[in-house]
Amino acid sequence: MTQYERLADEFQTLIHNGTLRVGDRLPSVRVTCARRHISPATVFQAYYLLESRGLVQARPRSGYFVAARRPEALAAPEVSSEPPPSQSVAVNDLVVEVLKLSRRAEVLPLGSAFPDPALFPLAKLGRSLGSAMRRLPPHKLVEDLATGHARLRQQVAQRLAADGLAVSADELVVTNGAMEALNLCLQAVTQPGDLVVLESPTFYASLQALERLQLQALALPTHPEHGIDLAALAQALATQPVKACWLMSSFQNPLGALMPEAKKQAIADLLARHQVPLIEDDVYGELYFGPHKPRPIKAFDRAGWVLHCGSFSKSLAPGYRVGWAAAGRWSRAVERAKVMSSLSAAVPSQVAISDYLAQGGHDLHLRRLRQTLQQQRDVALAAIAEHFPAGTQATRPEGGYLLWVALPGDIDTRALLPQALEAGVSLMPGALFSADQRFAHCLRLNYGAVGPDGLRDALARLGRLICDRTGLAPLSR
Amino acid sequence: MTQYERLADEFQTLIHNGTLRVGDRLPSVRVTCARRHISPATVFQAYYLLESRGLVQARPRSGYFVAARRPEALAAPEVSSEPPPSQSVAVNDLVVEVLKLSRRAEVLPLGSAFPDPALFPLAKLGRSLGSAMRRLPPHKLVEDLATGHARLRQQVAQRLAADGLAVSADELVVTNGAMEALNLCLQAVTQPGDLVVLESPTFYASLQALERLQLQALALPTHPEHGIDLAALAQALATQPVKACWLMSSFQNPLGALMPEAKKQAIADLLARHQVPLIEDDVYGELYFGPHKPRPIKAFDRAGWVLHCGSFSKSLAPGYRVGWAAAGRWSRAVERAKVMSSLSAAVPSQVAISDYLAQGGHDLHLRRLRQTLQQQRDVALAAIAEHFPAGTQATRPEGGYLLWVALPGDIDTRALLPQALEAGVSLMPGALFSADQRFAHCLRLNYGAVGPDGLRDALARLGRLICDRTGLAPLSR
Repeated sequence: MTQYERLADEFQTLIHNGTLRVGDRLPSVRVTCARRHISPATVFQAYYLLESRGLVQARPRSGYFVAARRPEALAAPEVSSEPPPSQSVAVNDLVVEVLKLSRRAEVLPLGSAFPDPALFPLAKLGRSLGSAMRRLPPHKLVEDLATGHARLRQQVAQRLAADGLAVSADELVVTNGAMEALNLCLQAVTQPGDLVVLESPTFYASLQALERLQLQALALPTHPEHGIDLAALAQALATQPVKACWLMSSFQNPLGALMPEAKKQAIADLLARHQVPLIEDDVYGELYFGPHKPRPIKAFDRAGWVLHCGSFSKSLAPGYRVGWAAAGRWSRAVERAKVMSSLSAAVPSQVAISDYLAQGGHDLHLRRLRQTLQQQRDVALAAIAEHFPAGTQATRPEGGYLLWVALPGDIDTRALLPQALEAGVSLMPGALFSADQRFAHCLRLNYGAVGPDGLRDALARLGRLICDRTGLAPLSR
Repeated sequence: MTQYERLADEFQTLIHNGTLRVGDRLPSVRVTCARRHISPATVFQAYYLLESRGLVQARPRSGYFVAARRPEALAAPEVSSEPPPSQSVAVNDLVVEVLKLSRRAEVLPLGSAFPDPALFPLAKLGRSLGSAMRRLPPHKLVEDLATGHARLRQQVAQRLAADGLAVSADELVVTNGAMEALNLCLQAVTQPGDLVVLESPTFYASLQALERLQLQALALPTHPEHGIDLAALAQALATQPVKACWLMSSFQNPLGALMPEAKKQAIADLLARHQVPLIEDDVYGELYFGPHKPRPIKAFDRAGWVLHCGSFSKSLAPGYRVGWAAAGRWSRAVERAKVMSSLSAAVPSQVAISDYLAQGGHDLHLRRLRQTLQQQRDVALAAIAEHFPAGTQATRPEGGYLLWVALPGDIDTRALLPQALEAGVSLMPGALFSADQRFAHCLRLNYGAVGPDGLRDALARLGRLICDRTGLAPLSR
């Protein structure tokens, strides 16, 4: 054990035994250096480690403070030496039903897939909508239909380039949100019956897409913090006829997992070696809480096996339905499939976003959005720790607005949903996130869909319900 | 032969032998009554008959005038007693290529699928876009996503009700244009390998949709003025395992054919008897030149076998990508497929159209649009008659903005396309409108994409090219 780890452990003991309590300030780095006769670097490392354990929180120019209690970290799943048998996907109509139920205005939408639209610069976007459409020459309404608005494609390419992705405007196909991009990419690289690697748990839309295209799913164990199990992926690629992968490398839905860069690099290498295309769903990449934007796997892809999909729906313009695919060698196939299936994304939405981006200020908006979401994550985790039963586990995502909760005891969160809606809260049942419904005791919660007060209120109601159902006392008792 | 037919034939002779020339006024009804000692009703009937033959044109409050010469009417196709063998569809990438090439701003876009956007109330729509989005509560951006904006669905249902379609707002699913609606409906009623009846020639998008879903096409003979051959359809339904039909009953793309109401009724009855669903593409229904809006087959469908698809792209808001499916018992299946494939149509587009419709004035816009398109049809037919080679046949659509031309001699219009683009005109080659490319000597022309002067100019250039290629002299020589 290094010196800084020892120091961190000491503080951890003080926190756990109540000597240091929530909100207490840790001694300053200067003071600790002087008392312990150690270097500032060692103290900083110890404090960083405590921060990464979720025990303390840095406040700019104020120091380190004991963080609000958080539920137990979600244990890593068992990584089976045999991946689960591949299966034909059959996803329940429940997804559509849950989405519909959760849309009721009076319900606190923790089951939603979107953040609160009030977090977005809608007024500014609306002005761009009006003025850009007034200036648009009428023939432009039908000219760029197939591939998308030319200037917008350039702007997206420039933003991707800033993230280290060498994608040309010509490679980009603008789509009706990322959902369509993902579907078109999957269609471009598969034939019915093909085997496709997914994460487990995975975003239900990927299960639906496989069902629609009559593909087989091979769902691999996925670590709640670091993403898909690399050994399992390597084994699957080596031993099974995998025709494609569909992964979220940054702030995975539903876990919120972020793959370390080394894993992203390793996956890019594996794909190239086995010549297997990856559909990379990167819709949450902009919503990072760390100091730097995490790079997608596409940034490590020298051999051109990654089809990268993104959108503006989660970070700027929900409901505008503007996404894109950067599909490399499959670009023309994706473009063709797009023309066949829906012709084009809406022109007004595209020109509005393009005009908005050209005005500047988008990155300022993103900084504020990230800060808000990070604060709300902490509010949510504190509320779960207070109101959910002992034994509850939760992830602590480093970005996005979705977290994953595993409940103790024998509970099926599908059965919980009607009661939760009755109590004015929606949630997304865990069973929707795998083809074999193995996550029935889990749920996905959106901490970006309502503000801090609503979040506390909603999680208190939900916690009471769960305690009632399980007969367990809340963690905080 | 009745008295009025005799009178009409007399005038026809005078027109054909040059006694009456293009633009000459026919004697007034009063004068003709007095000279011939016949009733005004008889004279009117004769003049109506001449009008329906395309020989004279009524000008409001001015009388009847000899119409511009028109090319020969397209002969009805041979109705084979055996329908052609069904086939797996493989449509050429040419469609995407042609669409791309034809999008160049300097080209007169007779190959386009859209009318000139300048014919639409874009300024008014743009104002609706800005103001409706300003008034929209933010949560609405994510609330109505799956099924579409609730008020717009109500407005569409009301418009359909006025046309005799009993469709509830709840049955309607708003889509990314009619293209997506058609694809989703086809998907809802078929499995890979199924046999689907199409028209021959048919809109290339239907061929692409079948290819995408791995369906078999049974293309039935289609009359250039009255649509699909009823006997062939009856025989196919009786003898083959037809799982669905995809038809355009009003102003068919590419022919411009309009089925008589009796045929629509008969088709509705046939479908009910054989329990076969029909996907009805009705995107041109609003663009009728006759006194009444033609009713779609869905209006005759008592047993619920018709999935009706429409959009605002051809009559109001190109590029906004707002269409709908009224899919009856398949509504929820279509909605589910929509959520899976692209989630939703763009909200700004939907609220803008809804706001525009609520203001009134849409029907006035449609009346003007129809009048313009009808005039441009006549300009196009006169220009074809003047510049295209003798032996050219063309349809004379009673609505929409697409007409179908069959060229004489041994010409493949795909080979003509690059030269036409060189000469600054696009066209849609006939080969794209069937799976077996049997219409290689035909082309589809859009008479709504440029104004009368551009239309004359474009068709003169095209006529010269074709005469050069075929070595035939123009009709007018």
